[in-house]
Amino acid sequence: MPSVNASRKGQEKPREIVDAAEDYAKERYGISSIIQSQEKPDRILVRVRDLTVQNADNVVWVRARVHTSRAKGKQCFLVLRQQQFNVQALVAVGDHASKQMVKFAANINKESIVDVEGIVRKVNQKIGSCTQQDVELHVQKIYVISLAEPRLPLQLDDAIRPEVEEEGRATVNQDTRLDNRVIDLRTSTSQAIFLLQSGICHLFRETLINKGFVEIQTPKIISAASEGGANVFTVSYFKNNAYLAQSPQLYKQMCICADFEKVFCIGPVFRAEDSNTHRHLTEFVGLDIEMAFNYHYHEVVEEIANTLVQIFKGLQERYQTEIQTVNKQFPCEPFKFLEPTLRLEYCEALAMLREAGVEMGDEEDLSTPNEKLLGRLVKEKYDTDFYVLDKYPLAVRPFYTMPDPRNPKQSNSYDMFMRGEEILSGAQRIHDPQLLTERALHHGIDLEKIKAYIDSFRFGAPPHAGGGIGLERVTMLFLGLHNVRQTSMFPRDPKRLTP
Amino acid sequence: MPSVNASRKGQEKPREIVDAAEDYAKERYGISSIIQSQEKPDRILVRVRDLTVQNADNVVWVRARVHTSRAKGKQCFLVLRQQQFNVQALVAVGDHASKQMVKFAANINKESIVDVEGIVRKVNQKIGSCTQQDVELHVQKIYVISLAEPRLPLQLDDAIRPEVEEEGRATVNQDTRLDNRVIDLRTSTSQAIFLLQSGICHLFRETLINKGFVEIQTPKIISAASEGGANVFTVSYFKNNAYLAQSPQLYKQMCICADFEKVFCIGPVFRAEDSNTHRHLTEFVGLDIEMAFNYHYHEVVEEIANTLVQIFKGLQERYQTEIQTVNKQFPCEPFKFLEPTLRLEYCEALAMLREAGVEMGDEEDLSTPNEKLLGRLVKEKYDTDFYVLDKYPLAVRPFYTMPDPRNPKQSNSYDMFMRGEEILSGAQRIHDPQLLTERALHHGIDLEKIKAYIDSFRFGAPPHAGGGIGLERVTMLFLGLHNVRQTSMFPRDPKRLTP
Repeated sequence: MPSVNASRKGQEKPREIVDAAEDYAKERYGISSIIQSQEKPDRILVRVRDLTVQNADNVVWVRARVHTSRAKGKQCFLVLRQQQFNVQALVAVGDHASKQMVKFAANINKESIVDVEGIVRKVNQKIGSCTQQDVELHVQKIYVISLAEPRLPLQLDDAIRPEVEEEGRATVNQDTRLDNRVIDLRTSTSQAIFLLQSGICHLFRETLINKGFVEIQTPKIISAASEGGANVFTVSYFKNNAYLAQSPQLYKQMCICADFEKVFCIGPVFRAEDSNTHRHLTEFVGLDIEMAFNYHYHEVVEEIANTLVQIFKGLQERYQTEIQTVNKQFPCEPFKFLEPTLRLEYCEALAMLREAGVEMGDEEDLSTPNEKLLGRLVKEKYDTDFYVLDKYPLAVRPFYTMPDPRNPKQSNSYDMFMRGEEILSGAQRIHDPQLLTERALHHGIDLEKIKAYIDSFRFGAPPHAGGGIGLERVTMLFLGLHNVRQTSMFPRDPKRLTP
Repeated sequence: MPSVNASRKGQEKPREIVDAAEDYAKERYGISSIIQSQEKPDRILVRVRDLTVQNADNVVWVRARVHTSRAKGKQCFLVLRQQQFNVQALVAVGDHASKQMVKFAANINKESIVDVEGIVRKVNQKIGSCTQQDVELHVQKIYVISLAEPRLPLQLDDAIRPEVEEEGRATVNQDTRLDNRVIDLRTSTSQAIFLLQSGICHLFRETLINKGFVEIQTPKIISAASEGGANVFTVSYFKNNAYLAQSPQLYKQMCICADFEKVFCIGPVFRAEDSNTHRHLTEFVGLDIEMAFNYHYHEVVEEIANTLVQIFKGLQERYQTEIQTVNKQFPCEPFKFLEPTLRLEYCEALAMLREAGVEMGDEEDLSTPNEKLLGRLVKEKYDTDFYVLDKYPLAVRPFYTMPDPRNPKQSNSYDMFMRGEEILSGAQRIHDPQLLTERALHHGIDLEKIKAYIDSFRFGAPPHAGGGIGLERVTMLFLGLHNVRQTSMFPRDPKRLTP
């Protein structure tokens, strides 16, 4: 008798059925041949999330994964899962199902995809373990559409278990998750994280397009290392070498010089940094903005901060389900922000840190622990998880940063923070070729190497400012997660290039 | 007397004025110091496109580029340009302007950015050379905000001249354009092309998000050449080698196996192909779709074709100005399409080509000239510039293409065409690991190298199909342009890596 795990042979054979001469249900179950687009049946597949008391007593078809199965005498209980939703299904010996059919259902490997025909039945007691708590599906037909191998490299129930919950119960470590990302991404937590991330991109663009921004596409292969030679990946480009862009900044600026006025782009950013931390990736997604302004770069700071606020609001309005799903595994305070956004000057931040006992020089950059501490101090004082830190010391910023006209040790530059971690770095850029040359020389930069950059400003350049946001960091910090690898579908770091 | 071209010295000096003890207008013009965000004036800058008879006799401030200037006795006529719009401005000796001020205005280098205060005056005779034909600006103050160098590498008026128009008049060749892209992108044609391209991305996403698709981000640095070793760029990745993704296909498919069901992504695609044609780039932007389907891959073909139709409709509704601007320089028939989209089978196309005298085998791929010819035949017969060519011979498609269950020489694969050129290639993918293995072996592919790919399908995989669209090609063919370099802001080909 061929079991459910028997290998499929030959595609022409329409269906393999558990052999049983006297099986009155033999047409009602089995392993389908590979769907090769043989036919276009009229059948309507109902979504699991739509299985409610509203369609009680209806006969429906559902395609879902077998999340769990449990045989119990003449019955088999299945949990059928579809994305974040699941429903209980019952195969019981009776008019529609034979004992062979119950056995078949009980032996379907977890994670297999099945087509099920069943009657939606209201249940008397809520099914606490399923999202569809008020109904179950009484199975009349069940066909395996795609059979999973019997041994899963990780269990989905382990993968969504809160790590603090019960000591001794299995959780899944990060490398196992990432090595088997196709399965790890099926958990309700992963589904929710990446639906929300898709929402961040959507809200970012929606907000900017409404503000009159133009989307641009910037090249990733470049002929010279744009921000100095360090931390850049080299590419073999036919008979020469080229590099991977560490940021779209030069191209955003060229678009400003080319009169596009307000531009944004979403794309990969590459950093050959050998940093193995919770927040560094060698390839991440940059949400980049650049904008000509009239008289003051705060026009741009306000646009960017407002854009982030629109993202936060949109997420809290449209993605409550996803936020709650993630919170079940990773509990976290809701993200707080002010309107208008809090803008602190660097010297104010220094004063707060010093009052808290930190010793720092006026022109010293913030260390990661001090950023974190500052985030806590700001949260205590202003009750916000999001703020702008403005007027960084000129000494700690790149050569193209516009100096503050009033204080030569300060600059027109800013970072933005979420829960005490930097998510954006930006500045007014120098748009005057002469001043840019002076600043490059001051930094000891070889002018030959940045000639094309400086030349971009020789034919009339409007004052402009911008910044780059790290998508994975925004996702991580909005949800209060602790590792950027949780918010990158296929993360890249110095030690990981797969899958 | 310092001229307008004198170099700026020192940033603290607020303004350099043309020296003239008896110049009664001396405060009314000059070169501003660099805008370093010194102040936040209340001044409102009016957009050039908003200068109409509606605000006749108002005093307004405008920031724009000096497109042209022409002195004529005691007057100077300027054309001020802002993106696709321009207006005439007049500086005339009188109460507000001295002869020194007129001279100053006449000597401002083209492409410099100026702030102008002026009165909007209705004109008696339409100004044919400007987009704002009914008014001109009577200048009362003029300050240079950013001075362009006196010699431009190309003239904007030459760059928008139709090539067929008048023989002997200057046009600008492509390399000069691309070498000086910041200036070339300022032309009304370039502005229109890239606004429309931004619109394509927006319409693509808008349509798919409304259909329930999820946006994903896929890695560009990969550990193994995804589609065989040919035409792939190598990256030095710390102490090892890595590669640049030739398509996001594997990752899109993994997302389908991870239950995201319908996904799209927009991102760079890299091809190390030494092709120097009008339609090949080494880096282009892919608009990619992948989707699980229920029973037949035509469900996906319809979704993709409908998405393209929504893009075409949206462009024709929202971007008429841009289409007409481009048509002035590059005349072209409006893009035609049918609803529902025409779907031809490969064997039908073969019959049409053979009837037109082409000799081709049943399992032979279409050459570029034959694609073009087919496009013309289809246009004649069906009056459409857009169609789907379905059921390609299995022999000319990649190993992961699902064979047609009815005809072993055909496959469940398709290309889509605009004006006779391919813009999308797609297929139902094999979702069964055993069949995938068989097909890979048939193609002589080393199984070790695609192990991760095949393993993705071992834990239950839904039937799925998808395709990738080339953004630059869609832009080019929709507008009837003839070179993909016109629709890539910063094109990359085997010979060009700059700017």
